Amino acid sequence: MTLVRRPVGAPVPEDFALGDVGLEDPGPGQVRVRVRSLSLDPYVRSLLGSGHLAEAALPLGSVVPGRSVAEVVDPGDSAHPPGSLVLAETGWRSDAVVDSAALRPVVVPAGLPPSVALGALGMPGLTAYAAHVRHLRPRPGDTVVVSAATGGVGSVSGALARRAGARAVAIVGSREKAEVATARLGYDAAVVRTDPRWLDALDEACPDRIHGYAHLADQATLDGVMERLAAGARVSLVGVIDQNNGAPATRLRVGAVMVARATVHGMVVHDHLDLTDDHVREVSDLLGEGVLELLEDTHVGLARAPEAFSRLLLGRNVGKVVVHVHPESSRSTEHPSQPRSST
Amino acid sequence: MTLVRRPVGAPVPEDFALGDVGLEDPGPGQVRVRVRSLSLDPYVRSLLGSGHLAEAALPLGSVVPGRSVAEVVDPGDSAHPPGSLVLAETGWRSDAVVDSAALRPVVVPAGLPPSVALGALGMPGLTAYAAHVRHLRPRPGDTVVVSAATGGVGSVSGALARRAGARAVAIVGSREKAEVATARLGYDAAVVRTDPRWLDALDEACPDRIHGYAHLADQATLDGVMERLAAGARVSLVGVIDQNNGAPATRLRVGAVMVARATVHGMVVHDHLDLTDDHVREVSDLLGEGVLELLEDTHVGLARAPEAFSRLLLGRNVGKVVVHVHPESSRSTEHPSQPRSST
Repeated sequence: MTLVRRPVGAPVPEDFALGDVGLEDPGPGQVRVRVRSLSLDPYVRSLLGSGHLAEAALPLGSVVPGRSVAEVVDPGDSAHPPGSLVLAETGWRSDAVVDSAALRPVVVPAGLPPSVALGALGMPGLTAYAAHVRHLRPRPGDTVVVSAATGGVGSVSGALARRAGARAVAIVGSREKAEVATARLGYDAAVVRTDPRWLDALDEACPDRIHGYAHLADQATLDGVMERLAAGARVSLVGVIDQNNGAPATRLRVGAVMVARATVHGMVVHDHLDLTDDHVREVSDLLGEGVLELLEDTHVGLARAPEAFSRLLLGRNVGKVVVHVHPESSRSTEHPSQPRSST
Repeated sequence: MTLVRRPVGAPVPEDFALGDVGLEDPGPGQVRVRVRSLSLDPYVRSLLGSGHLAEAALPLGSVVPGRSVAEVVDPGDSAHPPGSLVLAETGWRSDAVVDSAALRPVVVPAGLPPSVALGALGMPGLTAYAAHVRHLRPRPGDTVVVSAATGGVGSVSGALARRAGARAVAIVGSREKAEVATARLGYDAAVVRTDPRWLDALDEACPDRIHGYAHLADQATLDGVMERLAAGARVSLVGVIDQNNGAPATRLRVGAVMVARATVHGMVVHDHLDLTDDHVREVSDLLGEGVLELLEDTHVGLARAPEAFSRLLLGRNVGKVVVHVHPESSRSTEHPSQPRSST
């Protein structure tokens, strides 16, 4: 799947094109993989526009980047067994030839689908884990507020906060998600940020004010939370959703930071890869014990990726957005002698 | 000196009135003091308007609050020796009766005037020290930028940064102050924020970008610095000067915090009183060794306080603003049998 037009606001399917290209045999140090499950992530939106952090914008005609759980089809000269599952930066493709050095085996606890390695046990989960241990550090009795609370990052943030003995309050974009947050994800309370009286609801949900906040929402949400911080509060700036859709740059009122003697952290998950082992162990426990429910917004077939991505950026997903490109193992299907790839 | 009119923008002398009131004898637990040197501080501006942090606005007709180095005239039932110098919350008065429990003896290294206890060894110095050890934590080779760099807080911030092996860059409001910053205060470079090309000058002064920033300036200064942060930078929000004069609330671009993976701290000095002993010891050393020069913007007579305060808020002071109310010891003058106080 390639980018054929720069999106204005939220991407639409017409910004992308599905093509069919030949796929070379792996060269030295390369592996051919078949994409099983593709992760869709908000940061990709920035690449389609003006760039993400220090990364440049994606040239038109390029394959959209993305991480997958993929199956090794032709290991080339690598030690990856054929049929084994790996994490790979395949982009939005059905099949890909990738560098073997960049692959990581997918290790998932029994009973969980491999795609959990893209969500709670992948980058979104690591983001939540790093924000929790390095930024928010909740103490028992603290109130931790999580925006985008049912998403790939948020659902893990909430579970970690509760595990630490904190009160976890969800901020979500719809009543349906509020129900999911409290009934399935175990949040102590949920506030719908599009309700006209949402600030009153936030006050009610946070009677002791707010000690920790994971931000993955819009300007109005940030403003509402910042005015309700407790003294010494910690804020982790994980993402800004409105900017993805063309809104002006999110800004933070300095006076609110000063009055609360708050500490505000910019979160970029790549700074925290050293926490990977701790993250996988602790979040696997949360999943195993049922403190955290696996919540996925799943789509089948690469052709559905643009629509699923749009849904993500408009906040219509509930849970981690995953496209099952090839839900079945390649071993159960016949391959043409000359492999082709949809991109 | 009382507040008779709420200032609009920067205060003017007409907002205040000098009166003459009787002064009672000290009651139980009280001490009568004569104000030697009165500290003028920017936070007082907020009290004259809508309030400071959680503190309410000052009612019209009230004495303007402020801290002084004062001399004990009548110790009442306290152990403070007559003639001894104490730090007291006298407000803008010539003489005052204050609670003895709230007094602290003034201890100043040999060769320094007692008023240093209001500046480098007082609250402004403690603010700089706490921002340095708890927020900015510069490493050798880091670049630390200090705004309001020649003021009571800034001058100490710069000296502490240099002592830690960092490059110290001053942001100031005039060419005169830039000269003071580099020639007298030892900054490695100084940038005048009112110069049209000041951002180019800031780039030149910070070739390795900015690792630490003590903010005590306006929106444009904050924006300029935030776009030049190094990865992992630390920012201490010490004060916002434009708000004092009626400008809109200062705001911080969230994207800049995220790109730099910065940590932004709200600074309120009262959270850091536990550092007082370390602060006094280390900053006394800096003064003794000449790493930090004592820089005061001094005025004589209580009647000059409004003008000096206006000067401070317009950024026209160079160094800590002090009003010497009674420059001489009370022991060298006659007192009327019934004491009177100017307020």
